[in-house]
Amino acid sequence: MKTVNDEMGRMAEEITERIRRFLPSQKGYQKTVAEAMTYSVLNGGKRVRPILMLLTYRAFGGPAAEETSLLDPFLAAIEMIHSYSLVHDDLPAMDNDRFRRGKLTTHAKYGHAMGILAGDGLLNKAFETALCAEETEHTRGRVIPALRILAEKAGVYGMVGGQSVDVEKTGEPMSADELDFVYRLKTGALLEASMQVGAVLAGAAPEAVKEMGEIAMRVGLAFQIQDDILDIAGTTESLGKSVGSDEKNNKTTYVTLYGMRASKEAVENLSDEALTMLAKYPGGMRGKPLAELIASLVGRTV
Amino acid sequence: MKTVNDEMGRMAEEITERIRRFLPSQKGYQKTVAEAMTYSVLNGGKRVRPILMLLTYRAFGGPAAEETSLLDPFLAAIEMIHSYSLVHDDLPAMDNDRFRRGKLTTHAKYGHAMGILAGDGLLNKAFETALCAEETEHTRGRVIPALRILAEKAGVYGMVGGQSVDVEKTGEPMSADELDFVYRLKTGALLEASMQVGAVLAGAAPEAVKEMGEIAMRVGLAFQIQDDILDIAGTTESLGKSVGSDEKNNKTTYVTLYGMRASKEAVENLSDEALTMLAKYPGGMRGKPLAELIASLVGRTV
Repeated sequence: MKTVNDEMGRMAEEITERIRRFLPSQKGYQKTVAEAMTYSVLNGGKRVRPILMLLTYRAFGGPAAEETSLLDPFLAAIEMIHSYSLVHDDLPAMDNDRFRRGKLTTHAKYGHAMGILAGDGLLNKAFETALCAEETEHTRGRVIPALRILAEKAGVYGMVGGQSVDVEKTGEPMSADELDFVYRLKTGALLEASMQVGAVLAGAAPEAVKEMGEIAMRVGLAFQIQDDILDIAGTTESLGKSVGSDEKNNKTTYVTLYGMRASKEAVENLSDEALTMLAKYPGGMRGKPLAELIASLVGRTV
Repeated sequence: MKTVNDEMGRMAEEITERIRRFLPSQKGYQKTVAEAMTYSVLNGGKRVRPILMLLTYRAFGGPAAEETSLLDPFLAAIEMIHSYSLVHDDLPAMDNDRFRRGKLTTHAKYGHAMGILAGDGLLNKAFETALCAEETEHTRGRVIPALRILAEKAGVYGMVGGQSVDVEKTGEPMSADELDFVYRLKTGALLEASMQVGAVLAGAAPEAVKEMGEIAMRVGLAFQIQDDILDIAGTTESLGKSVGSDEKNNKTTYVTLYGMRASKEAVENLSDEALTMLAKYPGGMRGKPLAELIASLVGRTV
């Protein structure tokens, strides 16, 4: 039997192929930075954000004929933004990580300065790429609204804002409100952008676009809280990092604030809400790819 | 008598006021990064790029009524991109500068991690801001082409690409071709974007937009070579940096490659060419603001 994870693995491979053509050519004097950018994007990853975008686009009946010209540039763009954020997060001045998914991080392989520039290049390339999206008569007027969502959710009122508070609070306890802010912006915002951009490009109504953002935010929070739970309850093998590392680092997590039981309940409530909200939409019912993906992200079955 | 420099000083102040409203509000949990972003943009600077964009827009008859809604977001965007590039250039892993224009650099004031994030936030904010530009019936279809120019010239085939080669070649001699590449991309590309975006938003013909890029490239090269000349011939006071620092750092410059006399001739030829090309356009004649600005940038009078 094919599981959701098999299917996600297959889709991750498909997405990787689809975004590969937007990566910079490794020619000319700037080939090192182009290579570092490509390395950063192709350095593994589950492609959760572009898969979420693609399935939302399809759930809202986005035209199959325009997936290549309209949607693919945005699939690449959201993954480039996610990749740049990891490259800069891994820098010595930030988390100082030399390995990610068993491979050298970008700055560990190409040097510190090149790590900064590869990240800058990827963020810039994300917009450069999404700006190549082509509208037809049928999809006129969708690119700029999609770009605005992408820019807003990635920026100081989105991911960068969340990251900045996380950095500022390193080694200090966080309040419940601060932790909620960091989870919503650092992880949630790009998931929101993924679903909202997919919906906008497919021509979904504004109300539906808004609700996709609310669903994505719940998925992001549930995902993050589950990570906190696994840090304590999981095994090193399945997590790929040392269990209990949050506790060792004296880090505020959902579990340290509310306890294990309340954390598990929160994951359950958030994912129930997300799936209930989704159920009234075309991709939201049992067996539909978008609902299955979302359920699998928060560790549930539908 | 009012000099060109007085006029540029006045315009720099005007531009600063016009771009101020696009800077992030310093409220909420992310106020530190928002403050660091604002500090980086308001930390002095001659606003050469937005002034160049504004004067090109006006030279091509861009509608005055749309300066606020159509042009201003791009004036802010190009300055944010320039500012982010300085913030990241100044980082310890890059040039490691603690002062710029007599003030603490962003990372020196806000910490290394916040310097990285403020730069990321500014690059993202540049696109977020330019995406707010509003078209009217009269200017329909100009925003996306202008955004594409901005993204291309700032990215791996533009400024980031030039910067990456400069970084890679630190402490090593550069060939004439490499130096040309760095000068064209690291400095020239954003000047190109400035003039081209101004022309596109004003509705200039494609041929004129192309030629504005060629003019800007010559201005950028002349400007850069003049910097090399001044590093040897200038005084510390007028430059604000130690004279002869290039030589001390064993840096390849136009002067080390071709000698002082050929360098002075190159500046003269490039600026003659730029002014001759400009002369056939409406802003290109004696006494016209765009021609005067360009002449002053390359140290000539018209």
